[in-house]
Amino acid sequence: MKPTIVFWYEFASTYSYLSAMRIEETAARADVAVDWKPFLLGPIFKSQGWETSPFNIYPAKGRYMVRDIGRTAASRGIPFQMPASFPANGLKAARLAIAARSQGADAAFSRAVFAAAFAKGLDISDDAVLTDCLTSAGLEADDMRRLSTDMAVKSELRANTEEAQALGIFGAPSFSTPDGEMFWGDDRLDQALTWARKRAPG
Amino acid sequence: MKPTIVFWYEFASTYSYLSAMRIEETAARADVAVDWKPFLLGPIFKSQGWETSPFNIYPAKGRYMVRDIGRTAASRGIPFQMPASFPANGLKAARLAIAARSQGADAAFSRAVFAAAFAKGLDISDDAVLTDCLTSAGLEADDMRRLSTDMAVKSELRANTEEAQALGIFGAPSFSTPDGEMFWGDDRLDQALTWARKRAPG
Repeated sequence: MKPTIVFWYEFASTYSYLSAMRIEETAARADVAVDWKPFLLGPIFKSQGWETSPFNIYPAKGRYMVRDIGRTAASRGIPFQMPASFPANGLKAARLAIAARSQGADAAFSRAVFAAAFAKGLDISDDAVLTDCLTSAGLEADDMRRLSTDMAVKSELRANTEEAQALGIFGAPSFSTPDGEMFWGDDRLDQALTWARKRAPG
Repeated sequence: MKPTIVFWYEFASTYSYLSAMRIEETAARADVAVDWKPFLLGPIFKSQGWETSPFNIYPAKGRYMVRDIGRTAASRGIPFQMPASFPANGLKAARLAIAARSQGADAAFSRAVFAAAFAKGLDISDDAVLTDCLTSAGLEADDMRRLSTDMAVKSELRANTEEAQALGIFGAPSFSTPDGEMFWGDDRLDQALTWARKRAPG
């Protein structure tokens, strides 16, 4: 059986966008499976005293991030722009991603949300934007919206965020391997995949 | 003429250690020259409200950093350990590196300091440790110590730090190319070298 890495992502996170657009292809080449796990950075940031993204709190870092992602996106042939309001509120999108998992469409939906946010610069807390993302992932928007407000879905997202915090996750994207090793940042995807292969049983 | 990248480093910085130990060889392969430029992160951190390293302020990030550098160092075949006190006070080492430049030995001395700090876990604010680093770089310790307290050397270090801040540098290592492009982090060294080659005149 293939090893699996967990892809910890937050829809407001620019570097999560970079990973989301390449992780399936990159992991497939390494013969590793991907478990998409949305969580919220907001509560984790709050617990370290931040009320917004560090890219807003530290403007030099924020300006650099935009330039850095612009360069990397260009080198990978994907578009990049910042949405008008950053960070976006990704709560609804994250619940919808968990709902979409019941249809095996969480990866497709999540990529659509990331593309809406960072290729098109749209507001992913907007219901119309999310409807387009659901539809483009082959999902019934009304069904998914209903499911996404179920207590079970809300609890799962809360549990994901609590698990992330318990694992010491402090940013997104992060990647964890079956033996509990943790990797932070799009730059570490290849290292995480190599680690997952080496430590795979058999 | 080869293009040159500026290597902005701070002796207390763990990720600067990773770059210091490979930059000359990596840059030589890319046919790019390296200008070693020590600066102090302390004043830059202070200006954003930090009294110590973010790896101390945010313990989850600090724990991850140690693990992350441990993995990368192992994969590159170099030792790594954290000094007992972190971050070290790198002021004397930085002034000595500027003094060592007059003998063309700033790179050799700087590598010796980084190895003392992060391969051996020594305190690089200790004069005996710095003497060993100077000697191992082929320098006369007493001469260098005298020169390092000259007003011109002190001013140069202050100017480096002010220039770093003016360029938007917020962490180390950083790399800048002749056209003013800035790259942050050991992970970006290859991108910086490629950029410097592509933008080189002629």
